Amino acid sequence: MKHSSIPSAQLVVQHCKAKKLRNIVISPGSRNAPLIIGFTEDPYFTCYSIVDERSAAFFALGIAQQLKEPVALVCTSGSALLNYYPAIAEAFYSGIPIVAITADRPVYKIDVGDGQTIRQDHVFDRHIGYSANLRQDVTHSLARVQKYAPQWLKEGTAEENQSEIKQFNDSELNKALNVALQVKLPVHINVPFEEPLYDTVDQPTEVALTVMPQNSSEEAEIEMEPFVETWKNSERKMVLVGVNAPNEIDVDILEALANDPTVIVFTETTSNLHHKNFFGSIDSIVAPIEKASNTEELFNRLKPDILLTFGGLVVSKKIKAFLREYSPDQHWHIDQIKAFNTFFSLTEHVKQKPNDFLRKLLFNGQKAESDYYSYWSGRKTNYEARRDEYLAQIEFSDLLAFESILKFIPKETQVHLSNSSTVRYAQLFNLDSSLHVYCNRGTSGIDGSTSTAVGASINYTGPTLLITGDLSFFYDSNAMWNSYIRPDFRIILINNSGGGIFRILPGRDDSENFETFFETKHQMSGKLLSEQFGFNHQIVDEKRGLENALKEFFLPSQFPKVLEVSTPRLLNNKILLGYFDFIS
Amino acid sequence: MKHSSIPSAQLVVQHCKAKKLRNIVISPGSRNAPLIIGFTEDPYFTCYSIVDERSAAFFALGIAQQLKEPVALVCTSGSALLNYYPAIAEAFYSGIPIVAITADRPVYKIDVGDGQTIRQDHVFDRHIGYSANLRQDVTHSLARVQKYAPQWLKEGTAEENQSEIKQFNDSELNKALNVALQVKLPVHINVPFEEPLYDTVDQPTEVALTVMPQNSSEEAEIEMEPFVETWKNSERKMVLVGVNAPNEIDVDILEALANDPTVIVFTETTSNLHHKNFFGSIDSIVAPIEKASNTEELFNRLKPDILLTFGGLVVSKKIKAFLREYSPDQHWHIDQIKAFNTFFSLTEHVKQKPNDFLRKLLFNGQKAESDYYSYWSGRKTNYEARRDEYLAQIEFSDLLAFESILKFIPKETQVHLSNSSTVRYAQLFNLDSSLHVYCNRGTSGIDGSTSTAVGASINYTGPTLLITGDLSFFYDSNAMWNSYIRPDFRIILINNSGGGIFRILPGRDDSENFETFFETKHQMSGKLLSEQFGFNHQIVDEKRGLENALKEFFLPSQFPKVLEVSTPRLLNNKILLGYFDFIS
Repeated sequence: MKHSSIPSAQLVVQHCKAKKLRNIVISPGSRNAPLIIGFTEDPYFTCYSIVDERSAAFFALGIAQQLKEPVALVCTSGSALLNYYPAIAEAFYSGIPIVAITADRPVYKIDVGDGQTIRQDHVFDRHIGYSANLRQDVTHSLARVQKYAPQWLKEGTAEENQSEIKQFNDSELNKALNVALQVKLPVHINVPFEEPLYDTVDQPTEVALTVMPQNSSEEAEIEMEPFVETWKNSERKMVLVGVNAPNEIDVDILEALANDPTVIVFTETTSNLHHKNFFGSIDSIVAPIEKASNTEELFNRLKPDILLTFGGLVVSKKIKAFLREYSPDQHWHIDQIKAFNTFFSLTEHVKQKPNDFLRKLLFNGQKAESDYYSYWSGRKTNYEARRDEYLAQIEFSDLLAFESILKFIPKETQVHLSNSSTVRYAQLFNLDSSLHVYCNRGTSGIDGSTSTAVGASINYTGPTLLITGDLSFFYDSNAMWNSYIRPDFRIILINNSGGGIFRILPGRDDSENFETFFETKHQMSGKLLSEQFGFNHQIVDEKRGLENALKEFFLPSQFPKVLEVSTPRLLNNKILLGYFDFIS
Repeated sequence: MKHSSIPSAQLVVQHCKAKKLRNIVISPGSRNAPLIIGFTEDPYFTCYSIVDERSAAFFALGIAQQLKEPVALVCTSGSALLNYYPAIAEAFYSGIPIVAITADRPVYKIDVGDGQTIRQDHVFDRHIGYSANLRQDVTHSLARVQKYAPQWLKEGTAEENQSEIKQFNDSELNKALNVALQVKLPVHINVPFEEPLYDTVDQPTEVALTVMPQNSSEEAEIEMEPFVETWKNSERKMVLVGVNAPNEIDVDILEALANDPTVIVFTETTSNLHHKNFFGSIDSIVAPIEKASNTEELFNRLKPDILLTFGGLVVSKKIKAFLREYSPDQHWHIDQIKAFNTFFSLTEHVKQKPNDFLRKLLFNGQKAESDYYSYWSGRKTNYEARRDEYLAQIEFSDLLAFESILKFIPKETQVHLSNSSTVRYAQLFNLDSSLHVYCNRGTSGIDGSTSTAVGASINYTGPTLLITGDLSFFYDSNAMWNSYIRPDFRIILINNSGGGIFRILPGRDDSENFETFFETKHQMSGKLLSEQFGFNHQIVDEKRGLENALKEFFLPSQFPKVLEVSTPRLLNNKILLGYFDFIS
C-alpha cells in the first residue's frame, strides 16, 4: 500500500483510521495531494470526489447526519475551504461532526503574495468545536525552513525538532477528532505541506499516538426525585420536540406521554415522533389563538407550568413567540451536550439522553389531573375537520400540492425538506410515521438542502426524497454534480417562480421592487438542469396531473428523477393565509 | 420617497450615499428588508438582485474591479453571508473594496436556538479591512430590549440611549466605509434588526453624520535621489509586473523602460502592459534555463541587482521560485498601500503610484550600460521562433486552441481568464495590446471567475469575453443565473473533461484514483447549462471548426453565447510539456 512520504499527512490518515472515520469527501487540488494519496490508497476509507467545496461539505453533513459519526472533508489551500463555511455553521448549530481537513501552504508563504494562499488557520473560529493548526514537518523540508523560517527551528538536530513537531501534531489531532466524536461539533484541521507533494513510500514512517475519547455513553447521575415530584404534581406540562432523529424514543414512553391528561406534546415533521394524540401542526393551534377575540385568555390557558423540550431547533416561529411572551414556570431541556435558552426561561439543562430521562421521569404513578390535554385536543379535532373542508374547496396551489405529495410518499422513505417554505408547508399536515424526515434547521439556510439530501441518501436502506422550493433547488444545483446519486433518489421541485415565502410575510407590497428584490420572480424550470445531471424530469401544474405523476414517480427506475410542480405564484400566499383564517 | 422606519437602516443608506457607493448587489431575504427598502426606493442607487450570495459577492467584485470604487452587498441573516467569504478573501488579497452589509437578528437571539441566526459579527476577521458591528436601535424595539437585554440600556431615557447608539453607529459606518474608500479593502457592516421589518416612513428620521476620508491622491514626499542614483548605476534591473489595470502607466515611461539596455521587463497577460521589447511569457524564458545543462550560470546571469515590482499577484510560479533562490540585492515594490515580501528580499516599499514613481526615477540621463537586455532578448527571439515551429506541428489540444482563440479576440475586448490552466496557457502567448485582461489572482480560486466576469461586464464600454476551464465553469454556473448578462457577453469554455492542470503536475500517476480524485474526469458538456440560462451554445473539437466558429462568435447577437472547445484529455499535458522541451 502506498502512503504519502510526508509525515504529517501520514499522521492525519492514521488518526482518522484509529478513530474510525470511514467516509472522506475529497475536492480536487494539488496542495492536498498528500492527503488524497493517503486516504484513497487505503481501502479502509470510502472516498467521494466532489468538486464544489460548498456542495461537498453539505454532502458530508448528510452522510454524518445519517451515520451519526464524523465524516471528513479534504480540500486544497486558498479560498477552497471558505466554501465549507455554510455547512460548517449548519453542522455547528445542528450538532453534526464534520471534520474539515484543509491543506495549507507553508506558513512562510502566507501573506507574501503567493498563489492560493490565505490565512487558513482559525478561519472558522466563530463556529467550530476545535481548530487544530498542525506544524509543518522539518525533515521533509529542512533546507527551506532553514532559509525562510529559521525561527521555527529550536536548538537541536532536525530529528529532535521533528520529534517535537510530531508530538504537537499528534496532540492536536487527538483533541480535534475527540471533540468531533464526543461533543458532536464540526472541527477544523489545517495542515501545511511543502513540496514535493506527490512522493510516496511503501511503509509509513510515522506511527500516530492516538488517545481515544472517554466513553460518553455513561451518563452523569442526576437526582431524579425533584423532577419526578414536580412533574407528577403539575397539571399543565408541554413537551415540545425540535429536530430529532427517528426511533430515538421508545414506544411505551410515547404512549405514556400521549395518554397523560396533563400533558400536551407538540411535534414538528422534523421531530420524527408520532402519536394520534400528539399535536403535529403547532401553527394550526397557535394561529387561531392569535386571531381570536380572547387571545390572552387562550394563551394563558395554553401556557404550561413545565415546558420540557428535547431535540434541535424548532421550526415554528409562532410557538417561540408565544413561549417567550407567556413564560412557563420551568423549562427543562434534555440533551447530553447542550441546551439553548430558546424561550428565555430555561431552568434546567438535563444532561441525559431524552429516552433515559423520560423513562425515569414517567411511570411513577399518576398524580395530577386536568383538562389541559382534552381542551386542546378538542380544538385540534376542530381545526383538522376545517382543514379538510378547506382543502376540498381551494384551487391548485402550494398548499394543495403538499397535501397530495405527502399522501403519496412510500413508507420508510427518507424525506428531506428544504428551507424555507417547504418545511413550513409540511408542518401543516400529518406525515406517515414510517417516514424519516430531515431539514437543515441549524442555520435554516437554503444553501445546501439538496447536497445534504444526496449525502444522506448514500447509506440509507431505502429511497430518499427531497422536497424543495425553486430558489433552494437552483441555489444548490451543484448538488447533482457528482457520481453518487442513486437511481432511487427523488426530487420534488415546487416551482412557484420565486421566493414564494416573501409573499406571505406581513408588510410587503406588490411593487416591481418587491418582485425583483424580495420575491426574485423568474421563469426558469428545472428541466435542463435535471437533464444536465442525468435526472429524468417531468412537469405538472394541476392536481390530477400531479397525483397521476406521483403514482409512477416512486417506482424503481434506472435514473434518479425530478418531478417539477408548477404552482401559481400570485395565488399561493392568499390560499395559505386563507387557511389560517378558515380554521380560526 | 419611502424609507425604512428603522433608524440604523436609514443611517446605512445615508452613509453609502454620502460616500458615493452607487452599486448595490442584493440577495433576497426578510431580515434585510429594511436595507432592501432603503436602497431600492432611492433612485440614486443602481441595485442588482442575485440569489446565490457566493455568486453575488463575486459579481460585486467584478463591478468594483472595473469602476475602482466600493460596491455594496446586502444579504439576510444566517449562513447567507458565509457564502460571501470566498469573494471577500479574493477582494482582500486583490485590494478591491466590496462592502458586505449583512442584516442580523437582535443580539439576544444569537445562540439561543433561533432560526437563521449565527455569530455574524467579526466572522470575516481573518480577511477584512474593518468589521463594523452596529448596535440595535432601542426606540424601534424598546419593550423587547427591556425584556430580553436590559443590560444594553444605560440610565436615562430611550431617547438618550438611542442618541448614543446613533453616535456609535455613525462612527462605525464612517470607519468601515473610509477603509473601503482609502485602503481598498473589503469591509463588513453587520446590522441587527428587530421586527417589524417592513415599515416605512416618508421622511427619514435620522441624519447621518459622515466624515469623508482624507484625500489620498496627495502622496507622501519621498527622497528620490538615492533611488535615482542606485537605478542609474545598476547594470541589471528587472521590472516585474503583477496584476495591473489597463492604462495605468504612460507610454513614454514604457518606452523608456523598453529601450534601456540595463532593464528587462517581465509582464504577464494580467499586467496589461505591452511593448515588443517586454518579455510577455516569463515561463518560456525560465523553463529552458531549468532544463539547461548550465542552469546555475544562466540563472546568475538573469539575477537582477534591482528588482522593481508593481501591481498585484504574479502568476508565474517559476519566476517566484527563481527570485527566491537567486535573491536580488534590492527589491523595491511600488504601491500606494501595501507591499508583499513575495521574494523574501524586499528592501523598499515605495508608497507612490507606480506611474508617478517611475516618472521621477527615469529620465535622469542614462549612466550604466550592459548586455542584460540584449542577451535575454536574443533568447526570446529564439523561443518565439521555436514556439511558432512547434505550434505548426502539434495536434489539436488546449495549447493550439489557445493560439487560435487569442488571435481572434476583437480589439478592446475585456478578457477574463479563469484559474487555473486557463490563465497559465494564456501566459504563453502575446495578447493584443488593446485587450483589457483580468483574472482573480488574489486567492487564485476557481470559485467565482464567471460571476466576476459577469459583474465586470456590466459597465464596460465593449464586449466581455470569459475564457474558462470546465471545472471553473461548472463550479460557478450560478453566475449565469441573473438578469444582467449582456447580449455581447461571451464565454469560451475549454472542456478537457476534468482538471487538466493536474495531468501537468509532476509526480502524479495514471491510476483510477488519479482520474477520480485529482483530475475528476467527467463527460459533461456545457450545452444544457447554457440553454438553461439563455445562452446560445456551440461546440467544436478541432482547429478548423474552432477558427470558423470564432469568426462568427464575436459578431453582435441577440443573446450571450458560449463556445465550447472540446480538447483531448490525455493529450493536452503531453503537448504542453513538449512545448517546454521543444523551446529549450
